[in-house]
Amino acid sequence: MEATFRALSKHGYKDLRMRDIGEEMDLTRQVIHYHFDGKYDLLSSFLEHIIDQYEGSVVVECDADPRTELRARIDQCLFGPEFEQFGHWDRMKVYHELYTQAQNDGDHREVFNEHYDRIRGSIVEVVEDGIEKGVFRDVDAERMGQLITDVIHSARGRRISLGHEDAPEEARKAMDEFVLDSLERTE
Amino acid sequence: MEATFRALSKHGYKDLRMRDIGEEMDLTRQVIHYHFDGKYDLLSSFLEHIIDQYEGSVVVECDADPRTELRARIDQCLFGPEFEQFGHWDRMKVYHELYTQAQNDGDHREVFNEHYDRIRGSIVEVVEDGIEKGVFRDVDAERMGQLITDVIHSARGRRISLGHEDAPEEARKAMDEFVLDSLERTE
Repeated sequence: MEATFRALSKHGYKDLRMRDIGEEMDLTRQVIHYHFDGKYDLLSSFLEHIIDQYEGSVVVECDADPRTELRARIDQCLFGPEFEQFGHWDRMKVYHELYTQAQNDGDHREVFNEHYDRIRGSIVEVVEDGIEKGVFRDVDAERMGQLITDVIHSARGRRISLGHEDAPEEARKAMDEFVLDSLERTE
Repeated sequence: MEATFRALSKHGYKDLRMRDIGEEMDLTRQVIHYHFDGKYDLLSSFLEHIIDQYEGSVVVECDADPRTELRARIDQCLFGPEFEQFGHWDRMKVYHELYTQAQNDGDHREVFNEHYDRIRGSIVEVVEDGIEKGVFRDVDAERMGQLITDVIHSARGRRISLGHEDAPEEARKAMDEFVLDSLERTE
């Protein structure tokens, strides 16, 4: 997976050859073909790998206040996680490229859809918890989860595609000011 | 431009050959090369063409109420415009693919950045106008413009990449409920 990541970062998705991945790990194409049924199969495994890492990284204390937990989850999606060999933005570059390609790829589309449902679901859960505890006003939690995940996705995409380094930080401020503040207005 | 569009829709950005464009318009590669300095130059012209069409299509009555104008602009970015030979979503598929590729392309990045500034700017202008007229509360208009354009971009991307046909409609509802309602709360 590390070798795939390095090769993808260097060559991009469309231009990637199995040979490039082999070169990154001192293995021949034959050995990789023994484990994966071609480039596409390997890329699909890679996509699931980065999604697993990404989803597994959100650690929030069990007894956190819903307000704290919601912000922690948003920050994790916007900025983190930084771990292992490759950073959040290196991973996100590949992620966003495969996401756009998913318009022509039923299998990847399914992987992204399941991931989307889980990420949005985790936001919806915190919002519902906050409504139940009376710290959030009574809103359509599904729609709120959708709005927040949409903003997160766009901000990451702007940083990557347009080079707006401050996009995640600015998106957080916009959500704080225009969305979360009014969510916490329970009177 | 029409031939380029048809060829792009069939073959995708990375796999597109000048020959494919020629086939769409019964011209030889040589004739196209006479007018454009290669595939890249032609694609850049095409990108500017769809952006011009897109931006030129937003027609709002001069004396419209800022609330009406803001919603008209949002709807135009989310749903329209449908005109000429190719529809909004056909155009947006190419647009979103080139947007993601812009991470590796300084010239296209610049074109997208200028477009982003104009689209966000047109939203900012309406928000400022509404604040001045006292129909919107006093917010950071730049940040509000950024939030709205981010949501629009994500919703279009979800429809294209994940197949969420209702994403633009759902995004509009979320913005209405969680963003615009509180913007119009001036008491």
